[in-house]
This record gives sequence, structure tokens and C-alpha cells, in this order.
Amino acid sequence: MTEPGPIAGARRLLREQRFGTLATLTPDGAPFASLVGCATDSRGAPILLLSDLAVHTRNVKVDGRVSLLLDGSCDSASRLMGERLSVSGRLAPCSADEVRRRYLARHPDAAMLLDMADFRFYRLSVEHAHQVAGFGKIDQFAPDDLLVPTALADELDALAPSAIDHMHADHADAVCLMAGGDSDAVIVGIDADGMNLIQGHHPVRIMFAARLSSIEGLRESITEVVRQIRRNSG
Amino acid sequence: MTEPGPIAGARRLLREQRFGTLATLTPDGAPFASLVGCATDSRGAPILLLSDLAVHTRNVKVDGRVSLLLDGSCDSASRLMGERLSVSGRLAPCSADEVRRRYLARHPDAAMLLDMADFRFYRLSVEHAHQVAGFGKIDQFAPDDLLVPTALADELDALAPSAIDHMHADHADAVCLMAGGDSDAVIVGIDADGMNLIQGHHPVRIMFAARLSSIEGLRESITEVVRQIRRNSG
Repeated sequence: MTEPGPIAGARRLLREQRFGTLATLTPDGAPFASLVGCATDSRGAPILLLSDLAVHTRNVKVDGRVSLLLDGSCDSASRLMGERLSVSGRLAPCSADEVRRRYLARHPDAAMLLDMADFRFYRLSVEHAHQVAGFGKIDQFAPDDLLVPTALADELDALAPSAIDHMHADHADAVCLMAGGDSDAVIVGIDADGMNLIQGHHPVRIMFAARLSSIEGLRESITEVVRQIRRNSG
Repeated sequence: MTEPGPIAGARRLLREQRFGTLATLTPDGAPFASLVGCATDSRGAPILLLSDLAVHTRNVKVDGRVSLLLDGSCDSASRLMGERLSVSGRLAPCSADEVRRRYLARHPDAAMLLDMADFRFYRLSVEHAHQVAGFGKIDQFAPDDLLVPTALADELDALAPSAIDHMHADHADAVCLMAGGDSDAVIVGIDADGMNLIQGHHPVRIMFAARLSSIEGLRESITEVVRQIRRNSG
């Protein structure tokens, strides 16, 4: 029951990759490539935590246009055959609590950076995405293909705390199973594409078989994840 | 006897990384990030094999300014603590036999691409390099820091074929040792920073303890590599 097609691969890269290469513009308009940590907001837009002292941040303050490469082929023997996604748009500072919470869910170690005066969150306002999923397998996506509709993302954000409490209180065995058998693991976020867990100090991403089209699908999507894990390990 | 300091790390990234993220400029001057295969010419300048059909190639044909991120932290648990190098400059087509030979030494599988009409070699004329080697460990390098002087590179290119023949004829045991015990491995290139070997279909990079300052140092550098491997395995 895995969602077929290239858009599912693109959404997976967005949600699963914790690092990417950011292309920014130097003050004289030349490109500059650098490594950044990343996460996603509830809609799926990339969020970054950048230091004011870094070259890419100084670049972004002059011209916000960026492109972020998310590459899932890092450990592949044949990297150019692997899936990767170039997400292009504009980067702008953002300070919502949700962004902070979702970034820390994917980068627990970044908590110490938040106490430093020079680190700030930025959100990539996606304008276009370009995916290469192997030799000649090329797709273009518009923001509406890639991102969760705002209304659904907001509904899920409102529902998530009680859904997470319910999972911990009444389905601790399922949470443990999703974290590979670790009974100390906790769910720290739910979005339309899946769940963020923290296992010890390590982030774990669980993807739903397909993106939710409404909050009514949440229970069934979580149940299906657990069923699938039981099937694979049984 | 490892060469100390950040410049050694930068030269190592240049020579060892077989893939990088290329930042190019779209026709409207926005940045675009994409994955590319890479190798180095004998001086150490990055060489790429790009398809005319790819977005990055179309970008480069309009504006040759690029930045290439070489990231050695791909398999590190804490990627932002790892070493990476942003090499910026201009990309231009090149067709020297040496470039073809050196690219194939690092990407044996790319031989099939050379028969396709749309693949061409490009060389990055390095103008500037920016290295981050962990939290706050930042260095800038000029081309002369990073690259081998042209005269020395040319001398080594002229010497390499006979040096390689000599290694295969009289030091087959050492070549085997450098390839982890594979007696079918061959040396396919020598430069001032080390050697390129092919083991089966897999590229192997052997770095010298330090960059050669003259061709007279070649024998001692190779001997030291072999001595070091014997020491580590003995």
C-alpha cells in the first residue's frame, strides 16, 4: 500500500533528510554551496537553523533566493542512480514555536545552539522542486504538489498533542514497536506524512503509507504503520 | 607523518570525494543545487562529466560561475561536525585526454556515458575555497594553496606512465597491499597528492602523507605509504 510515483519519493526526501546542501548567492551574484541541517514544518516546507556568522546566512540576508539539495543516496554504491530533490525558493527568518519544536524533533542536539545569540530559524518558501530519481528519471513539482494544504496542516497541528498523548497512554506497545523495540521512545510530532519520534537522543522518522487527505485518516494511517511493522517482523 | 593543518584536509576532500553538490545559476540569476560526479585533474582542479540535457549544464552555458561542495561527513553520525569544502570558480568545457583518463580512474562506470552524444567534460577553474571542519573551524584557501603548481603537475604527468609500469613490474606486492590484498588491482594514475587505483571495478584513492614538492620525492612517498600500511596491518 505504498503511495506510488515520484511525488511520494519527493515528499519522503523532504521529511526524512536531516541535512542538505544549500545553494545561496554571494553579494556579487555568484553561487555558493554549503552544508546545512534541515527539518520540515507541518506543511513540509524546509526549516533551517543558521548562524549569523556563516557565509550562507550573510548571503541570504542580501538575497533570499536559495536552492536546497536533499540527497537520499548518501550511502548508495551508485549515487547518481539514487533519488535527490532540489527545492528552490526564498529563505526568510521565522520564529514560530512550531518551527522550533519540529526542528528539535529532528535535531535533538541542536538545543544547545538555541542558547547562542547568533542562531536563528529560517523557512524555505518553496517555489519549485526538481527531482532526479536515477538516470533520466526527472520530475518537476509545484509547491502544491509537494506541500500539505495549510488548512489540513493546521487541523493536524491542533489535533497532534491529544493524539500523541493517546498513543503514549493507550498504545505504548505500538510506539515501542515503531522505535524498533525501545520502550523509552516517544512521539514528538505528527504531520500529514508521518510521525517524528525521539529514541534516546536519536531522531526517528516514521512515514505513513500515503499522505493524509484529511484528519479522519490519521487513526487508520497509524494503525497501518504498526500493522506493516508487525508483518515485516513476524 | 601525516601533513598537519586544514589545507591537508581540503586537499584530501578534493582528491577523495567522488560526488559533490554543484551550485549553479539559473538564467534569472537564482541559485540551483544538484548532485554531480567529480574527480580532479593532475593539479587538483575538479573535473565533472555533465549531460547537455541536465539543468545544471544549461545553467553553466549561460553563466559559468559555480560552487562545488565536497562533503566528507556523509557517513558521520554528526554531519555538521565533519569536514567539508566549498570550491568556487568558473566551469568551462575541456577535452584533454588527461581529463578523460583521470575521470574514468575515479568513475570506471562512467565509460558508458562517454559514448553518448550529450556528455561532456568540464573543469572548474578554482578562484576560492571555503572549508568548514567542524564547529567554528573555518578556513579560506586561495587556488595556489589548494592546487599543485603547473610545472610540477606536468613533470609528474610525464613521469607517471613509467613510474606505474615500474610499480607493476617490480613492486606488484606493494600494489596488492595498497588495494587491501587484491592482486588484480592496478595503479591508473599518480599525482602530487597520491595515487588512483582500480580494484575490480572499484576506484581506490591512496593519499601520500604529504603533497610532493618535487618529483624527486615520489619514490619516498610511495615507499612511506607501503611502510605505513605494513605497520598498520602488522
